[in-house]
Amino acid sequence: MADGPTITTIAERAGVSIASVSRVLNGLPTRQETVRKVMAAAEELGYVRNAVARSLKSRRTHQVAFAMADVGNPAYLAMLRQIQPVLKSAGYRLVLHSTDAVVADEIDVLHSLGERYVDGLIMSPLRVTEQHLDMLAAARAPVVIIGSVPEGTPVDNVRADSRTGVKLAIDHLYRLGRRTIGMVNGPTDTVPGAARGAAYREALEDLGLPYDEELVEIGDFYRAEGGRAVAALLERRPDVDALMCANDLIALGALDVLRAAGRRVPHDVAVAGMDDTDLAAASWPSLTSVSLGSAERGKAAAELLVDRLKNGDREPRRVTVPPRLAVRASTTGEEPAPYQAPGAERGTP
Amino acid sequence: MADGPTITTIAERAGVSIASVSRVLNGLPTRQETVRKVMAAAEELGYVRNAVARSLKSRRTHQVAFAMADVGNPAYLAMLRQIQPVLKSAGYRLVLHSTDAVVADEIDVLHSLGERYVDGLIMSPLRVTEQHLDMLAAARAPVVIIGSVPEGTPVDNVRADSRTGVKLAIDHLYRLGRRTIGMVNGPTDTVPGAARGAAYREALEDLGLPYDEELVEIGDFYRAEGGRAVAALLERRPDVDALMCANDLIALGALDVLRAAGRRVPHDVAVAGMDDTDLAAASWPSLTSVSLGSAERGKAAAELLVDRLKNGDREPRRVTVPPRLAVRASTTGEEPAPYQAPGAERGTP
Repeated sequence: MADGPTITTIAERAGVSIASVSRVLNGLPTRQETVRKVMAAAEELGYVRNAVARSLKSRRTHQVAFAMADVGNPAYLAMLRQIQPVLKSAGYRLVLHSTDAVVADEIDVLHSLGERYVDGLIMSPLRVTEQHLDMLAAARAPVVIIGSVPEGTPVDNVRADSRTGVKLAIDHLYRLGRRTIGMVNGPTDTVPGAARGAAYREALEDLGLPYDEELVEIGDFYRAEGGRAVAALLERRPDVDALMCANDLIALGALDVLRAAGRRVPHDVAVAGMDDTDLAAASWPSLTSVSLGSAERGKAAAELLVDRLKNGDREPRRVTVPPRLAVRASTTGEEPAPYQAPGAERGTP
Repeated sequence: MADGPTITTIAERAGVSIASVSRVLNGLPTRQETVRKVMAAAEELGYVRNAVARSLKSRRTHQVAFAMADVGNPAYLAMLRQIQPVLKSAGYRLVLHSTDAVVADEIDVLHSLGERYVDGLIMSPLRVTEQHLDMLAAARAPVVIIGSVPEGTPVDNVRADSRTGVKLAIDHLYRLGRRTIGMVNGPTDTVPGAARGAAYREALEDLGLPYDEELVEIGDFYRAEGGRAVAALLERRPDVDALMCANDLIALGALDVLRAAGRRVPHDVAVAGMDDTDLAAASWPSLTSVSLGSAERGKAAAELLVDRLKNGDREPRRVTVPPRLAVRASTTGEEPAPYQAPGAERGTP
């Protein structure tokens, strides 16, 4: 919004207060002389009428919604951070929904597109059901889905590739000489749990390593549960020399438990996480982690939607964001030089 | 949204598809028989007409905006996590603005209230200027400010108390026997930098400890800069036995540098951070940190706004959220039992 004339620059040009400019532009009672000055300055600066005026003219709302499954999940927040500036610079306001991954809530968001309160929607459902597909077919505004949809679904679609992601990490552990690689997963009746568990098995097969059920432990996608699962796995198989953890929180739980058990990371047991959240770089040892490109997926989804809003007729597109392995000390033992790390994370202010 | 009848429950009752219900309620062409079934089911279930219909009737938008300074900052994200559910359960959609703490952008958001695209606004400016105050006085919709505003400003206001927060940490370090307590701050021309620097000085005075400029180092609010500042301080004053860091990222930089220098934390140097972000619990040793109650401030702001929207005439209220010290291993040396920590952080899915 800081580009182009604003009420601040108009106030400077007109030599009146910002509040006066705001009153004039919002049509509130103001002294004639002030109105004259403000209108002259606005014209000189080429000020474009406000969004409501534009909206009345174009029947567009200049709003776009993002329906995220969980406002507390770092992966969705990473998407949000990228979606917001793309929409802002394209002149759209962002309406935020949190659906808690409840299907009925997601369906309601799709239905509410009929109210025309937004021009388009980005949705990141945990699981795309038949009901989603029905509603997508009937949607009253363009939708971009972040996640997997069946072939031929007529929406723009951005997806991750967790299978290749798990393979990247397992191959990395193998190259480091690890041959007894355990898997600590979340529930396998969730989409990520099922995908990551299957990918682990495949990656071992590709390397000619046997799949051994004793090396697999199912907990939940949280730190405490991850720790408990790792403790159980260690007790059953003390010979494990690497752990593939299905997300970073599980991997943090693994570091806790290995430290308490006196097992050195990575010397005795190498640990890899998944999602490459801010927590991965903050932990010690810092955590090798598979990035599934949440930020890139958010950016791609926003760009697809902005493009679709300009060009409603083009064919649906699918973008797959490739995974990337962030190699850190929990597998290689090498901590980065302490104060040369780029300050990618944000703090106060 | 899952409470009360939804199009999902209406579809079940009517025995038709969800997409059919959506079409009927959105006024699209549908078979008479389907329309009849859907309308009967909607009536039986007491379905309330959609937001646009409500909006036309009440001239309300049922939208509320949150203007956050920085969508990448964990403190604002913590606010967002709390604001979202309060607004959702009160029936408001959330419109999200990111202003990058640019005053002109914040002024534009206040001005745009004249467009009536929202019923109210929560704003968290880094600094409240004269221009903000002018615009607040002329605002066309209720505004809640998270931050400090001058006495008598006619808006609801939620504030933190970083002064008491710094004092909590310094007193804690003092009780642990530390007497040479350094301060690693961000730039003192920012609001938090100035407040935290002054609070450090006051807290020492209250304890009868001398203020020594050599023990103060100014860097920036990021990990790498924090580390550099700590390295400079350590070189000048190797006798420092505790570090008060102005945020958690600076404190993580301190842990990096102390580890590289072979100084044990907390045995040789105790370290305290500020903001109590997710990173504090993830680091090792886990980080003692002052919470300024971002989550509580977000919740209080949303509740004040929802209350104001019901009762526009009441007097402005001010809520001050007290700080809280989260004591962890970086000062006491005691790591929590590894797998009993509650899984407060969220992960996949």
